[in-house]
Amino acid sequence: MSTSPVARPAPLARDHFRHTLRIATRWSDNDVYGHVNNVVYYAWFDTVVNRSLIEAGVLDIHGGDVIGLVVETQCHYFAPLAFPQEIDAALRVEHLGRSSVRYRVGLFGAGEPLTAAHGHFVHVYVDRTTRRPVHLPEPLAAALHRWT
Amino acid sequence: MSTSPVARPAPLARDHFRHTLRIATRWSDNDVYGHVNNVVYYAWFDTVVNRSLIEAGVLDIHGGDVIGLVVETQCHYFAPLAFPQEIDAALRVEHLGRSSVRYRVGLFGAGEPLTAAHGHFVHVYVDRTTRRPVHLPEPLAAALHRWT
Amino acid sequence: MSTSPVARPAPLARDHFRHTLRIATRWSDNDVYGHVNNVVYYAWFDTVVNRSLIEAGVLDIHGGDVIGLVVETQCHYFAPLAFPQEIDAALRVEHLGRSSVRYRVGLFGAGEPLTAAHGHFVHVYVDRTTRRPVHLPEPLAAALHRWT
Amino acid sequence: MSTSPVARPAPLARDHFRHTLRIATRWSDNDVYGHVNNVVYYAWFDTVVNRSLIEAGVLDIHGGDVIGLVVETQCHYFAPLAFPQEIDAALRVEHLGRSSVRYRVGLFGAGEPLTAAHGHFVHVYVDRTTRRPVHLPEPLAAALHRWT
Repeated sequence: MSTSPVARPAPLARDHFRHTLRIATRWSDNDVYGHVNNVVYYAWFDTVVNRSLIEAGVLDIHGGDVIGLVVETQCHYFAPLAFPQEIDAALRVEHLGRSSVRYRVGLFGAGEPLTAAHGHFVHVYVDRTTRRPVHLPEPLAAALHRWT
Repeated sequence: MSTSPVARPAPLARDHFRHTLRIATRWSDNDVYGHVNNVVYYAWFDTVVNRSLIEAGVLDIHGGDVIGLVVETQCHYFAPLAFPQEIDAALRVEHLGRSSVRYRVGLFGAGEPLTAAHGHFVHVYVDRTTRRPVHLPEPLAAALHRWT
Repeated sequence: MSTSPVARPAPLARDHFRHTLRIATRWSDNDVYGHVNNVVYYAWFDTVVNRSLIEAGVLDIHGGDVIGLVVETQCHYFAPLAFPQEIDAALRVEHLGRSSVRYRVGLFGAGEPLTAAHGHFVHVYVDRTTRRPVHLPEPLAAALHRWT
Repeated sequence: MSTSPVARPAPLARDHFRHTLRIATRWSDNDVYGHVNNVVYYAWFDTVVNRSLIEAGVLDIHGGDVIGLVVETQCHYFAPLAFPQEIDAALRVEHLGRSSVRYRVGLFGAGEPLTAAHGHFVHVYVDRTTRRPVHLPEPLAAALHRWT
């Protein structure tokens, strides 16, 4: 569209991603215009990334020595989502560094083939106390590698 | 930083922005790691953009014929913020198209000279009913021009 | 407990309720103390009530002539819940008036027999435009009666 | 109102309360019906209680030995609030026990004389590690006593 100030990527298909989580929308997700507020998509980014890591046994958010700090996020929105539909949050690891990981996260209406929105999410792993970057622990790096 | 998968911009000073709004943090803004969750920053983006437009008299969120749909957002995080501190959300118009506008939004701890985070936020204005892009109404375009 | 200023009800079993919805917790639901923030429970109240009505075909949140306004809510908390677990939100109609309905809503950890929290939620149905109370529409009243 | 299943208290005036905090509403506070969602009121309860305690120097949410767990909350809603207005959250201590405190929290539109909503909020203080009730520490009890 000629009026757009930025080049826009296209929606992505489900096979672009490695791991998917079903999430129920909530009443409060819809804003005054009747669709899910753009902010909520990022709550789903956080959720699919952290829950996937916890369930893979490679992140302990309560007592682990290292934690992931978010340094950059971005999202492109293609189609509306709305409560009460359910959505699928899907992830893929796009870049795996020494202490950081960049995910591509896609959000689909349940049953839909293309992303309603997708974006990226960059975690830098730091020491919980000093908050300085550390190398990714081996089990975490191995799990992330499976999602590349 | 060699571990970073992306080039990172630097924090911005207050004089980069045109309009600022003071916002109280809330208990629920802090996440389990003790700082404001990355998602909340986008709630402040929405807030400073829409409140500034409403208070300038150029956006009627309840009955206006045109509404702004968010098509892209992005944020870079530089320093933590935490409840109970207050924050300043600041904006500048970076690009003004025929039917779209791209804002730079900066978030500062109250009294701090540099952004703790900043990002962009792209609104495309559409007809409320058809949801198809329309030209920016004159009063809206004029207000946005003052914030360039 | 002698120090408590209020009499406290006991947790409820699943067979107290008539309809249940599975909901995924989100990263941001946990607060700084590591458990789901008390506020989120009410987001689940809203969600189970409104989604159940929408799926029963008796509430149109976008264009219906009548809408439900919340006039009172309450919750007692018995046991913590925490991301990333899933929860079950369950409801029962406790009182059905001419223009109002009072629900009991129970929240269970997935697979748990007793409520981690439960409370009530009172909707008064009003005309969308005038916001004055109206009699419950017949199909809505019938659906609510099935959940008593 | 004959259709109401519960006796309803009346709005309260500002002099009922002891301490007040100004809070900016956010875009996402409004729900699809155009007013602040009932859930958000509880986020303001949490905020005024905890911020007041932190600023009085009697609560350390990050490292303190004791933390306040919420065991019961309730809210009555009298009049709508809506983004972008600012609100005042006000508190008073209604009951001070050995290990618990019950607050009355009132929410006012900025400049309004009567509560748009008010409710109560019960904290039980527990040991951070064992999560068992403890006596209120002296400085906390003294601060709370000033708000009775």
